[in-house]
Amino acid sequence: MTQNDVLVIGAGFSGLEAARRLSGRFSVRVLEARARPGGRALLHTFANGDEVDLGGQWAGPAQHRLNALISDLGASTYPLWNEGDHLVALNSRLKRYRGTIPALPLHVLLDLNNMLSRFEAMAAGIDLDQPWAHAKALDWDRRTVADFMARNGFTAQAREMFAIGIGAVFCAEPHELSLLHALFYARAGGSLDALLSVEGGAQQDRVHGGMGGLAQRMAEGLGDQITYEAPVEALHWDQAGVRAITPAGVFQARRAILALPPSQALAIRFDPVLPAQRDALWRRMPAGACIKCVAQYERPFWREAGLSGQSVGGPAPVRVTFDNTEAGREHGLLLGFIEGDEARIWSGRDPAERRAAVLESFAAVFGEAARHPVDYADQDWTAEPYTRGCYAAFMGPGVWTSLGRHLRAPLGPLHMAGTETAREGYGYFEGALEAAERAAREVEGALKA
Amino acid sequence: MTQNDVLVIGAGFSGLEAARRLSGRFSVRVLEARARPGGRALLHTFANGDEVDLGGQWAGPAQHRLNALISDLGASTYPLWNEGDHLVALNSRLKRYRGTIPALPLHVLLDLNNMLSRFEAMAAGIDLDQPWAHAKALDWDRRTVADFMARNGFTAQAREMFAIGIGAVFCAEPHELSLLHALFYARAGGSLDALLSVEGGAQQDRVHGGMGGLAQRMAEGLGDQITYEAPVEALHWDQAGVRAITPAGVFQARRAILALPPSQALAIRFDPVLPAQRDALWRRMPAGACIKCVAQYERPFWREAGLSGQSVGGPAPVRVTFDNTEAGREHGLLLGFIEGDEARIWSGRDPAERRAAVLESFAAVFGEAARHPVDYADQDWTAEPYTRGCYAAFMGPGVWTSLGRHLRAPLGPLHMAGTETAREGYGYFEGALEAAERAAREVEGALKA
Repeated sequence: MTQNDVLVIGAGFSGLEAARRLSGRFSVRVLEARARPGGRALLHTFANGDEVDLGGQWAGPAQHRLNALISDLGASTYPLWNEGDHLVALNSRLKRYRGTIPALPLHVLLDLNNMLSRFEAMAAGIDLDQPWAHAKALDWDRRTVADFMARNGFTAQAREMFAIGIGAVFCAEPHELSLLHALFYARAGGSLDALLSVEGGAQQDRVHGGMGGLAQRMAEGLGDQITYEAPVEALHWDQAGVRAITPAGVFQARRAILALPPSQALAIRFDPVLPAQRDALWRRMPAGACIKCVAQYERPFWREAGLSGQSVGGPAPVRVTFDNTEAGREHGLLLGFIEGDEARIWSGRDPAERRAAVLESFAAVFGEAARHPVDYADQDWTAEPYTRGCYAAFMGPGVWTSLGRHLRAPLGPLHMAGTETAREGYGYFEGALEAAERAAREVEGALKA
Repeated sequence: MTQNDVLVIGAGFSGLEAARRLSGRFSVRVLEARARPGGRALLHTFANGDEVDLGGQWAGPAQHRLNALISDLGASTYPLWNEGDHLVALNSRLKRYRGTIPALPLHVLLDLNNMLSRFEAMAAGIDLDQPWAHAKALDWDRRTVADFMARNGFTAQAREMFAIGIGAVFCAEPHELSLLHALFYARAGGSLDALLSVEGGAQQDRVHGGMGGLAQRMAEGLGDQITYEAPVEALHWDQAGVRAITPAGVFQARRAILALPPSQALAIRFDPVLPAQRDALWRRMPAGACIKCVAQYERPFWREAGLSGQSVGGPAPVRVTFDNTEAGREHGLLLGFIEGDEARIWSGRDPAERRAAVLESFAAVFGEAARHPVDYADQDWTAEPYTRGCYAAFMGPGVWTSLGRHLRAPLGPLHMAGTETAREGYGYFEGALEAAERAAREVEGALKA
């Protein structure tokens, strides 16, 4: 039985950052279920040595904690390939466009613009500390995003584009999401426009060596303070501290930081059991569904046709694509996301069948050359036992207003981290860092008291 | 390590019934987490010896499996007290009425009747084997019951009455529930009218000795085939069979029946991990929230005022009451339910404070005498670690159509029981028995093959 000041449960971005902040001044032990650090950051290496993130991969200019971390660790960024025309597929026809908003008939553009403006105006009023406190919170929390779309979108095409945007941001369907949650999420990330944008937005930059590499560097800095393959099976807690039971041993500490998504926190047997509200909240926060798919080609052939590699609305299963080629590398990488209900359909299928379907989607948008990659990789986050979904947990109707107060509040010696407890950057690495900052501050205050 | 033909996980009504059906012909081991059988059936004994169910308590005339079980075990039923006038509280005024539908202004009654008729007509078309197959399934699954109410209820009073009915049936708020799920649920119980009714409906009869007593008799019949205090922590499964790890030992079998609610099934570490869809489905099936409150009085004083003890719409936290006096007993029992969001507010509060609030609700409806019970008991099912909510798990928008196919299907040697897998009587003891019947049949077929 080892004794520390702080146990950090989970070595994703949030847990690693919390440990970095507390390490040195306090004795810290990080317990990680997997044999690797990074959580929802995961680096894949193709046969030729090209690396690609199969987990989260982007840094936006407004994500100042993430950018500071990147600098701090001596890493550097490069912009996502954003030159050439994007493609929008509607009614089986492909049209080229530039910027964030696809080329659509004028009345559809106006309709979509109206939906987005209305959404942004509503989101702007959300108090990130207490989304339930808005004068219209109850009303908005009792509606879904689908309801917002039905009320505010007058053309089917505008509603479809809006739905694709929602899918790309949440990996969930509009009818699954509380409108209040979606508004909070947009506000927490700056705005919906920022979350949907490449230049100036959440998809602007990538990191040489990947986010997976960044997590690795953080973990290396913590050295043997991390114990891997140590899923916490039971956690005893009282005012004196915590005791974690894992296959790698029993760990005691005065405080614990839970730096893992709600679905994983639920897998821990708490003793005493959690208050009903905390348990109910976590049970009401399922994760989005996402399969990230990357095809490697001898060169980024779409650029030769003046295309950016970015597309929306192509045929299922992939509805959104990006040029994921690392700056300075020769091979071209095409990235596609299978999201929401489509991910649930494709999870667990034969890998060859899934690859064929993805390449079929790519070919429908970028032509026959897309059928012949050099290499291919995908990651089904819904099947990953210690994640069970991406990008983040979301809230359906009614959850924020009835149980949201229990999201971030400490519980005795237990402190809440993970991007799902962030007030800024919820669902992003930025949020993981913000939550870590807060949780570390709470623990520091408690240990000094 | 013990070896059996079948492991039954959970000794609620479903697990006990499955074990009864298989016992004798196969070697059966029932593993129960608690020190008692019954699951969501729980008998409480007041200081004077009066007994009352703090869990499920009713039998309806259409619940033929439950009625057969009652006969089979030599138990007998008596009707819930249903004489005198019911009370409906609206706009702070109490009005008397008889039957299922409260006394309301005529235009409100017509409006409510129209909502109910429309709901029943929609429910009547649901295929219980595959609710997702209805021509309008996708549309209905993307809406909530709140949306149905907003579209079909024109008066605030009719919508409020409808919401109270939904609360009483689901212990969840209208905006939390997929409309398709609510339609399925009503159809699975016969009709919404049957679920809301006393005479001829799901609240018609009670059992001498209680449902808790019935569970006890089933358990006694199984004798030492049940191991108590054996929560399954891990379950290894492959085509050859299963191995369950519990604090009470390790148990092997050729097949297992999971007779526990989805939230509890999630607490098991499956090895290999579950397919993503099964895991995602269970994560998307949170339970309703319910605190069942019973006050014992020297006599059922409300009867003297010509009242039935049944009321709807009284002031929070209790919105629905019943006369729960056991036939032939002298003391009067008044039953109130705290449901949905109210249950989340009142869970974990000081017991004396909760008791005072409940008696305040009772007094507002039945007068000052309600403030002075002889005894009082309540059961917060959301705080119960091996239940975490009542009456049953429900589905929010989008779940039935995207994941519902994985609800009842066996998974290798694992067979699904529990009322949440029932096609008839979902959420009721009847459903627990129906699911047990099916699961036992599946196991029998597999073991004989």
